[in-house]
Amino acid sequence: MNLILLFESDFTSSNIAVIADRRYQHISQIQKPEIGETLKVGLLNGHMGTGQVLAIDESSIKFQVILNSQPPAPLPCTLLLALPRPKMLKRVLQTVSAMGVKQLYLINSYRVDKSYWSSPVLEKQINEHLLLGLEQAGDTVMPEVHLRKRFKPFVEDELPDIARNSRAIVAHPYLAKPCPTAENTLTTLAIGPEGGFIPYEIEKLNEAGFESAHIGERILRVETAVPALLSRLFPI
Amino acid sequence: MNLILLFESDFTSSNIAVIADRRYQHISQIQKPEIGETLKVGLLNGHMGTGQVLAIDESSIKFQVILNSQPPAPLPCTLLLALPRPKMLKRVLQTVSAMGVKQLYLINSYRVDKSYWSSPVLEKQINEHLLLGLEQAGDTVMPEVHLRKRFKPFVEDELPDIARNSRAIVAHPYLAKPCPTAENTLTTLAIGPEGGFIPYEIEKLNEAGFESAHIGERILRVETAVPALLSRLFPI
Repeated sequence: MNLILLFESDFTSSNIAVIADRRYQHISQIQKPEIGETLKVGLLNGHMGTGQVLAIDESSIKFQVILNSQPPAPLPCTLLLALPRPKMLKRVLQTVSAMGVKQLYLINSYRVDKSYWSSPVLEKQINEHLLLGLEQAGDTVMPEVHLRKRFKPFVEDELPDIARNSRAIVAHPYLAKPCPTAENTLTTLAIGPEGGFIPYEIEKLNEAGFESAHIGERILRVETAVPALLSRLFPI
Repeated sequence: MNLILLFESDFTSSNIAVIADRRYQHISQIQKPEIGETLKVGLLNGHMGTGQVLAIDESSIKFQVILNSQPPAPLPCTLLLALPRPKMLKRVLQTVSAMGVKQLYLINSYRVDKSYWSSPVLEKQINEHLLLGLEQAGDTVMPEVHLRKRFKPFVEDELPDIARNSRAIVAHPYLAKPCPTAENTLTTLAIGPEGGFIPYEIEKLNEAGFESAHIGERILRVETAVPALLSRLFPI
């Protein structure tokens, strides 16, 4: 937890916040601050700054909060991801959030197991893992996650508008060009499931304006491909 | 498993291999090949090629093997990694192996918990996770892993020789330049623990010729930083 993320509901007055949940546990057990010490804090979807410890007891911690700096710039990237299996989804949500992606579409694909769509992670834990990513990276802006359970209508009817005026890339190891170089430009990136998109899906994505690109002959797991591709496509 | 990795001991003659272990379970349950079908195989630390299924029963599968192609080129990278906690170590070993790093030093650092050095992962499971990475990526060449439990003697006595004639970089988010661009050049990359190297350690690494570099203001978990940095530092 490199940033303590505060919610509006934590504030007891305009600049005093009290927390008593998972965040309190972490701070009191790991960071162990003294009275008067300042920690890095941020307001969800707002500014970042410092929290000076005014009081800490066995169940809560009270901060005087100054919010005076901007969160890191978001990546200019909309990410389309074939829904990964639940265990991997957790980690991918944290990574996506930590790396600054703000628009995530979890989409269906032929090789996505149907059961993944009824996973409890998807139903209840998306925000929890996105928050962990923000706390890790030091960011306050919550990504938006969109679920699209049907591939064809999504790609035909919705995707052309989403990808309009952006560099549209589908990561695909076969019949593809090398991944384009880092550029701070609006990008829509599609990443397939384990085993890849099937040829029909690649065809539909190509029709929607997506160019196939690879990052080498090695086949990476989705959770490795996501940071590798984002790091390749965007400069610092 | 995008590649079935074979060992010398699997061969019953020069071009016939029989397997009956975890790999057999995976092939028979997931890939379900028919007699006559060919699968991608590779010999550990040797060539890659195809295995044609000659027979498959309830406990083993027999291949006729042709080994006629080179594994992917290795990354020209020696990676120094402050020993991560065991659960993360498993995933990092797979990632490092999948991305083509062939020399990995797991080193101590002030912020490495002493208990990590006696983890069963470190004692017994390193090769298992490296193999999973090779099978995932489609590579045959096993990385070499070196354990260095003492930071100072390693950095003072051994590291200058390891890093000689290479681009030596320590990933560090503070007082650092942006990460250099992708270049297919011999590189020694050091990545700290969660919380980073302490100033003394950075100083020692700088003395050993390492330049501090960052990949943005976001703080990434080690398992995310590894693919992000490798993807940033090396072209396809």
